Amino acid sequence: MFNEKPKALAKKYKEALLSDVIPFWEKHSVDEKYGGYFSCLDRDGTAYDTDKFIWLQARQVWTFSMLYNRVDSKDKWLSIAEKGYQFLKEHGMDASGNWYFSMNRRGEPLIQPYNIFSDCFAALAFHEYYQATGEEEARTIAIRTYENILDRRDNPKGQYEKSVRGTRPLKGFALPMMLSVLNLEMENILDQKKVEQSLDRCIHEVTEIFWDDKQKVMHEYVLKNGSYSDSYEGRLVNPGHGIEAMWFLMEIGRRRSDQKLIEKATDITLNLIEFGWDSEYGGIYYFLDAEGHPPLQLEWTQKLWWVHLETLIALSKGYLLTERSESAKWYQKVHDYSWKRFNDSDYGEWFGYLNRQGERYTTLKGSKWKGCFHVPRAMYECWQTFEELAQKE
Amino acid sequence: MFNEKPKALAKKYKEALLSDVIPFWEKHSVDEKYGGYFSCLDRDGTAYDTDKFIWLQARQVWTFSMLYNRVDSKDKWLSIAEKGYQFLKEHGMDASGNWYFSMNRRGEPLIQPYNIFSDCFAALAFHEYYQATGEEEARTIAIRTYENILDRRDNPKGQYEKSVRGTRPLKGFALPMMLSVLNLEMENILDQKKVEQSLDRCIHEVTEIFWDDKQKVMHEYVLKNGSYSDSYEGRLVNPGHGIEAMWFLMEIGRRRSDQKLIEKATDITLNLIEFGWDSEYGGIYYFLDAEGHPPLQLEWTQKLWWVHLETLIALSKGYLLTERSESAKWYQKVHDYSWKRFNDSDYGEWFGYLNRQGERYTTLKGSKWKGCFHVPRAMYECWQTFEELAQKE
Repeated sequence: MFNEKPKALAKKYKEALLSDVIPFWEKHSVDEKYGGYFSCLDRDGTAYDTDKFIWLQARQVWTFSMLYNRVDSKDKWLSIAEKGYQFLKEHGMDASGNWYFSMNRRGEPLIQPYNIFSDCFAALAFHEYYQATGEEEARTIAIRTYENILDRRDNPKGQYEKSVRGTRPLKGFALPMMLSVLNLEMENILDQKKVEQSLDRCIHEVTEIFWDDKQKVMHEYVLKNGSYSDSYEGRLVNPGHGIEAMWFLMEIGRRRSDQKLIEKATDITLNLIEFGWDSEYGGIYYFLDAEGHPPLQLEWTQKLWWVHLETLIALSKGYLLTERSESAKWYQKVHDYSWKRFNDSDYGEWFGYLNRQGERYTTLKGSKWKGCFHVPRAMYECWQTFEELAQKE
Repeated sequence: MFNEKPKALAKKYKEALLSDVIPFWEKHSVDEKYGGYFSCLDRDGTAYDTDKFIWLQARQVWTFSMLYNRVDSKDKWLSIAEKGYQFLKEHGMDASGNWYFSMNRRGEPLIQPYNIFSDCFAALAFHEYYQATGEEEARTIAIRTYENILDRRDNPKGQYEKSVRGTRPLKGFALPMMLSVLNLEMENILDQKKVEQSLDRCIHEVTEIFWDDKQKVMHEYVLKNGSYSDSYEGRLVNPGHGIEAMWFLMEIGRRRSDQKLIEKATDITLNLIEFGWDSEYGGIYYFLDAEGHPPLQLEWTQKLWWVHLETLIALSKGYLLTERSESAKWYQKVHDYSWKRFNDSDYGEWFGYLNRQGERYTTLKGSKWKGCFHVPRAMYECWQTFEELAQKE
């Protein structure tokens, strides 16, 4: 089904992860002076900005702890995870335990805790670090953060919420999706019954409320009563975001031996890639409007690294779990597109941003939004998937 | 100096304004049912979204009142201005007289008054409508809004301000610039002494604090003490925004017979266009980083209609007031670039957004950000400038 054998693909991803991507972050991102990590890195790894963003600090703690837990218990990896863990523990929270959005190099807070995903990534990071070290304080903070998130879920932005209550009450797709990941990853330290209830709720919301079986799109926002909102927010589709959610659902399906859920997630993945694929220049659009109007986001035609990586995970996992040839066919198409354009064989890691035509308009390796997360996670996930496929053969 | 004679250019702009641009908005934007205007218009003028954004509602009231005041006292123009004036007066403000950011078609508020520029555009609109009608209520609201803006100027976002006080106290270039426009336009209903003080302060801030004579860029943000901030915000340059401010300064210079100020504004315009011009594909970049790093804005390479229109105003005015050949040379270059690519000779008005290569990636005529403002204002300003140039000859 693939141009290369699963064994060879497993090797490709493993080598990319261990000999290219991780060494790049090991070498360039650690702030030896103040702790934490630089995420704003030029093509060759030089830091061009030293601000520290909680999303990216936490994701890197998660990545290095995850590698330690799942790949190899290397001291070096744990010590890099600890650099971020200590920095976050000392500087990352306000007095109520809410996570700031960003800090300067020294850890002084710059942006208030308006963004609940900072808390989500922090909870995942501290949980994974706890798994690696058994450090009780990491566990305590992970649980407290998780509970904070549940308390804030109905009004996640708090005082910073700018929409007027009542006129057009929307709910977003991102938070229920993220909660399912939190529940999946942290289940060993959470109440088992609550985890199952939360996963049920998430599956229902994603596959029956946000997924629109008529328009065949995943809405980023729907009205609180579940119906469609004909507005910029309601029409917005982020194909990569929907596809990323589908491989989370496949994992839930696998864990519950729920083949129906896996098939559904595969269907949706295939629908979304058909909707999101740029038939003229190739690659997956960043944003689209469900009804074909111009999206507000001026970058909507661009091709982003994480969109393509999450799609590679979802398609390979979908093929592993359903054996559908459509998944393999699309995997190959996205693989060819992505490895050719995003991979930087000169300096390591992946480029982040291409224009519609597939050309790089910037060579950065990291920024306020791109860090040590999507690339290594996808390399790890695809490596494991192709390893399983190889063993099945 | 120009490829066409000033007389011909004046005619070109006048005809574009009166036979192309304004008819487009007259025909497609007025909401006869609920009042106010549609701003989200497809290429042919069809509304694809009916939300109403205060910036764009107010700017259209201003435009039609301005045309009535300065071009021709046509009943039709006044009645279109009134449509927006009534809608804004009834629905646009919260109980304290602060202006919302957006509303749905019926005028129910969607987004809270977090954005002080909503208030700025409302004040300008209500003042211009007062000039047209003598309507006392319009004057009262214009003055109250102006005073509200002054009260809020040190913390314009109020509770919605997300930066942590003290760590990196920045001030923005947009507000002082906007205040100078308010003072210039509204001076006939404001205290004369305060107007002069405010203009002095604005000239000082713009030409000595935000303008960086070493880097030859206009910073969008500096530290409150006036010094450079080596951060994403501090490094951000928006060449079109700086250039737009320069023609406001030229107008202040003209009003005060301050030739030195006019020369300075012309110098800065020329510096900014040299900095912002894309030497490979032509056109002016939307955003740049003062030190050449990648800007955060993924749309930074794009070429936007308003950037080029504001530049045409600044260069033509600069030439009129200084007779410098550099201004004329650059005017011609930007003219050739812009008229060829933005102007829609099939359906009227201008396209808004080109990719770096100068190709349209959307054909919208209006949106949440593009409305009846930059195009007609620039057509009017350039018409007047070339008329003056023709008379000088």
